[in-house]
Amino acid sequence: MAEPTERLERPRVPALDAILGEALPVLDQGFVRVVDYMGDDQAIVQAARVSYGAGTKSVREDRGLIRHLMRHRHTSPFEMCELKLHLRLPMDCWRQWIRHRTASVNEYSTRYSIAIDEAAATAPDAWRRQAADNRQGSEGRLDAGVGEGLSEAERRLQAEARRVYEERLAAGVAREQARKDLPLSTYTEAYWKIDLHNLLHFLALRLDVHAQEEIRRYATVIGERVVARWVPLTWEAFLDFRLGATTLSRLEAELVGLIGRGDMAGALARAREAGLLREQDGRLLPGGELRELEAKLAAMGLPAPWRREARGAAEGPAR
Amino acid sequence: MAEPTERLERPRVPALDAILGEALPVLDQGFVRVVDYMGDDQAIVQAARVSYGAGTKSVREDRGLIRHLMRHRHTSPFEMCELKLHLRLPMDCWRQWIRHRTASVNEYSTRYSIAIDEAAATAPDAWRRQAADNRQGSEGRLDAGVGEGLSEAERRLQAEARRVYEERLAAGVAREQARKDLPLSTYTEAYWKIDLHNLLHFLALRLDVHAQEEIRRYATVIGERVVARWVPLTWEAFLDFRLGATTLSRLEAELVGLIGRGDMAGALARAREAGLLREQDGRLLPGGELRELEAKLAAMGLPAPWRREARGAAEGPAR
Amino acid sequence: MAEPTERLERPRVPALDAILGEALPVLDQGFVRVVDYMGDDQAIVQAARVSYGAGTKSVREDRGLIRHLMRHRHTSPFEMCELKLHLRLPMDCWRQWIRHRTASVNEYSTRYSIAIDEAAATAPDAWRRQAADNRQGSEGRLDAGVGEGLSEAERRLQAEARRVYEERLAAGVAREQARKDLPLSTYTEAYWKIDLHNLLHFLALRLDVHAQEEIRRYATVIGERVVARWVPLTWEAFLDFRLGATTLSRLEAELVGLIGRGDMAGALARAREAGLLREQDGRLLPGGELRELEAKLAAMGLPAPWRREARGAAEGPAR
Amino acid sequence: MAEPTERLERPRVPALDAILGEALPVLDQGFVRVVDYMGDDQAIVQAARVSYGAGTKSVREDRGLIRHLMRHRHTSPFEMCELKLHLRLPMDCWRQWIRHRTASVNEYSTRYSIAIDEAAATAPDAWRRQAADNRQGSEGRLDAGVGEGLSEAERRLQAEARRVYEERLAAGVAREQARKDLPLSTYTEAYWKIDLHNLLHFLALRLDVHAQEEIRRYATVIGERVVARWVPLTWEAFLDFRLGATTLSRLEAELVGLIGRGDMAGALARAREAGLLREQDGRLLPGGELRELEAKLAAMGLPAPWRREARGAAEGPAR
Repeated sequence: MAEPTERLERPRVPALDAILGEALPVLDQGFVRVVDYMGDDQAIVQAARVSYGAGTKSVREDRGLIRHLMRHRHTSPFEMCELKLHLRLPMDCWRQWIRHRTASVNEYSTRYSIAIDEAAATAPDAWRRQAADNRQGSEGRLDAGVGEGLSEAERRLQAEARRVYEERLAAGVAREQARKDLPLSTYTEAYWKIDLHNLLHFLALRLDVHAQEEIRRYATVIGERVVARWVPLTWEAFLDFRLGATTLSRLEAELVGLIGRGDMAGALARAREAGLLREQDGRLLPGGELRELEAKLAAMGLPAPWRREARGAAEGPAR
Repeated sequence: MAEPTERLERPRVPALDAILGEALPVLDQGFVRVVDYMGDDQAIVQAARVSYGAGTKSVREDRGLIRHLMRHRHTSPFEMCELKLHLRLPMDCWRQWIRHRTASVNEYSTRYSIAIDEAAATAPDAWRRQAADNRQGSEGRLDAGVGEGLSEAERRLQAEARRVYEERLAAGVAREQARKDLPLSTYTEAYWKIDLHNLLHFLALRLDVHAQEEIRRYATVIGERVVARWVPLTWEAFLDFRLGATTLSRLEAELVGLIGRGDMAGALARAREAGLLREQDGRLLPGGELRELEAKLAAMGLPAPWRREARGAAEGPAR
Repeated sequence: MAEPTERLERPRVPALDAILGEALPVLDQGFVRVVDYMGDDQAIVQAARVSYGAGTKSVREDRGLIRHLMRHRHTSPFEMCELKLHLRLPMDCWRQWIRHRTASVNEYSTRYSIAIDEAAATAPDAWRRQAADNRQGSEGRLDAGVGEGLSEAERRLQAEARRVYEERLAAGVAREQARKDLPLSTYTEAYWKIDLHNLLHFLALRLDVHAQEEIRRYATVIGERVVARWVPLTWEAFLDFRLGATTLSRLEAELVGLIGRGDMAGALARAREAGLLREQDGRLLPGGELRELEAKLAAMGLPAPWRREARGAAEGPAR
Repeated sequence: MAEPTERLERPRVPALDAILGEALPVLDQGFVRVVDYMGDDQAIVQAARVSYGAGTKSVREDRGLIRHLMRHRHTSPFEMCELKLHLRLPMDCWRQWIRHRTASVNEYSTRYSIAIDEAAATAPDAWRRQAADNRQGSEGRLDAGVGEGLSEAERRLQAEARRVYEERLAAGVAREQARKDLPLSTYTEAYWKIDLHNLLHFLALRLDVHAQEEIRRYATVIGERVVARWVPLTWEAFLDFRLGATTLSRLEAELVGLIGRGDMAGALARAREAGLLREQDGRLLPGGELRELEAKLAAMGLPAPWRREARGAAEGPAR
């Protein structure tokens, strides 16, 4: 609880002030630009200490408190910081962005003004292949020879769409209607203002490997070039406790315990009992939940006992 | 305060049940479909009476209470009703719709599935002219002869965009990337769930004469065919106290008072003093705020004293 | 649309910087303290101009645009400013405050720390009488002689409640439980952060004559001493178009038109037809909606034709 | 994507209908009462399938899809269900409850009506001791002999506070002011409406072992007696993937991997390198983050290598 009569200076973050207004480039024509911010790491601590009242000032230093707040999902102090960005991005990407409902938004209006004359172009070697095992993802790139033709068709289509748009305007069609067949790749701009807690939630979702590449590139710039400068202690805690964290379900934690104690047979029995594993023609078939656990085990360097090689090891000599 | 031990039946609205699941058509290929609802007019009253506590049950009848709540913007009881719709609408329209942040949304995913093969078509006589005095509006229609050509170009562009999309899919491009040049006119679908208070706010904005025609047509169907059936007392109060209401600024109320008392000279002097009126070459020029008041005066059948004809009348014999 | 490469300085408002951190007193022990802010009047204009696109910069000056936005409830640019306050207020008042769900909050925790040893005291001449015609309001003051006894009983009760609280703590009771019988008048503190649009909504409700006196005093300090300094153009527009505005229902606008045209008989007939007026023993009895219109008419200096004196005037010689 | 012309029945959940309106008791005088609901497990699946589009209907059965959504925090389909409760609870508890900003609320008004004449009473054996190692928690109970005195003092204080309240009312004090010294233990009532996603978030926080006992008892009734009946598949998934889940930070996952592979020395070195462990007088002292990991390891049956007994085991013969 701060002494109420003290005079204040607004918190400033020189590292962020240094890039204020600078257009950080993303994609072929997009950018992220910091317009303003409120608060810093210290402001989070200050708000948390109102919660915790007098007398705690010396108990923990700031970094420890911020890490504690992040680890235990005490989210309200992170709402006390605010960031305002100016964005330029394709409408296709904006369609995903705008699903985050906790931000304030002013978008460039193509009712009021003529649409921006830029559309996102795809290089011949940047066409992504549909993922085989994930209906909503991509994996790898198409051959650049095939990409050449696709990029050329893209250019022609975008040019034709623009020509039709301008033809309509020339004929006197209202802007609000003329725009109706612009491609989703058309660039738009927006002011976007959000508090740090909700920004981190946005980043956790959009930095994820399953997020679409385009929005992930915006999220990467915002995270690594903006948030890391603005609130470095919070960014470090976010990487440790959220982005880099592993969540184990009730059953997964049980299985990791069995595997970690070397009880492979127990782990197999438990997985089978839970209906996640069945035997077919002498082979063990893990279900979807178990395949997700496999990835977590691999990251921890632990064996998946339903795999032949792991069982071989487990049945072999003492580890 | 309801007696807590009584057993309840869920409120039902037979008039709304009668159209549950029915696709109410909008635009050429769109629809609004009621999927589910919670509460009715009576549920609003019931929630308000928890606020107001015991003993008030007989004081006002439901209609009076609902009108009182609407008139005084006691909005929380209206949040106690909820509506779930299934929508089919062009992405262009959805871009406006999604700006309302207080709803729950599940949109059809064109990452996961192939985009709907429909785009909004414009009839030759349906091309709207850019408004002259409102940068973001339209007024009137283009000549159908001109429209013929525009509609033909629209058809060709939409067909070409679809061809390119399908060519990409056939080449193995990921759906999330192949979609990037679909026209904004492409139809999408969504489940959209919102409480009645926020729905009325949506309707107030989107039934407004300045809203774009396409979204206004959806709002009209939702208001007149859904809300009017579901909560008829609330709908009536909404028409009386919000949609049909006139708001007068501090100065406008003063001017209406002067005009209503027949004091035209006083009204002129007050408007000039406030900087809303200036004289040029013997003519009085009203500014933007005053032109808005003119429309309100006209709707009330009252004269605008800065207009020659009104002054003529005011300077004439006793009214 | 700002030129994206320009370098920015953060907006500063020297008039607000001058009181940053200063405890502005409210009630006997409360305060409002500005901790930080983001944006200014100019930031609202800047965000709005992203919406409206390039080329509009010179068309309207800032004041005109802000007034236009306020008048037409274009609320999103006002969300681009943010205010962070440190508050000290009785829990009773906080119970009303916290109902505004659009703010970020960190409250002093009486689970973690010992409750603040202050309770709001009432002076002998500050006891308010229950309103006769408004179940949830007050009017006038009780006699100071009666108040003397009430204030003395208040002091004793608050002291006893504190004694019991401290007795529990001394006995080892957990703070989270010991606090359970503290009086609602106990002071608490909070950091409270909200954007300007939602702050104005808070102020519109809490500056209203029907708001409870205690919270109205906080709202008055925030409005007149903070917002008026911070965003003076917005504050002026708010007073003109929201706080000082009059809303007329569909029917009320019709009646004002009839009255303003001198058609008292028409106004009476219309009110009777709408069920808002009935005759009893030769007297006209206006219903609740009509009594609310009376107050609006009085403020505009217009007669209420269902009142004898107004009818006398209307039936008299030409106005 | 449902076939848009099919007619619908509203989803019903007979198991929940069976208790509609029934006051489920909590604490000495409180209750939770289900007033209405929208949707069921199937409605979550239906909304998710709009997202995922046509053709997926047969791929996964409902349970699998709900578990997938919960595991991957695809939260929007859970927003498609809604629950409306009538609550009776002490104001002290309501102060915590109301911090959840995503619900709709109508609270019993003590401005409008006389405050409910009930306050939460504490039995002599129900006084909780302040926790030694957690500033904001409790542990164990006070001796009932001590409790006897505390309960008696509680009774007297509550009676005195009520007497003062009624004395004020009798003197003509406005209800809004008379209530100011009511104890926080006074019961209030509210209608509370929230969607399932936000309800689960509320339950995750309020069923946690660190939540205060009073609100935890309400959360338990809502979870086990209401949600479990209403959406049993979702409740099961919630228990498995959220309430029963373990989250490991980046470093914790690394340490669990080392420990699970039997590399105790490596785990110790890594923890020391990360600054979480220091040696003092030959003993290893784990910091706060490591003590939290210990609890997770214990739950998984894995040793904490910085504990002597674990190291003894690790230094023993091959596992």
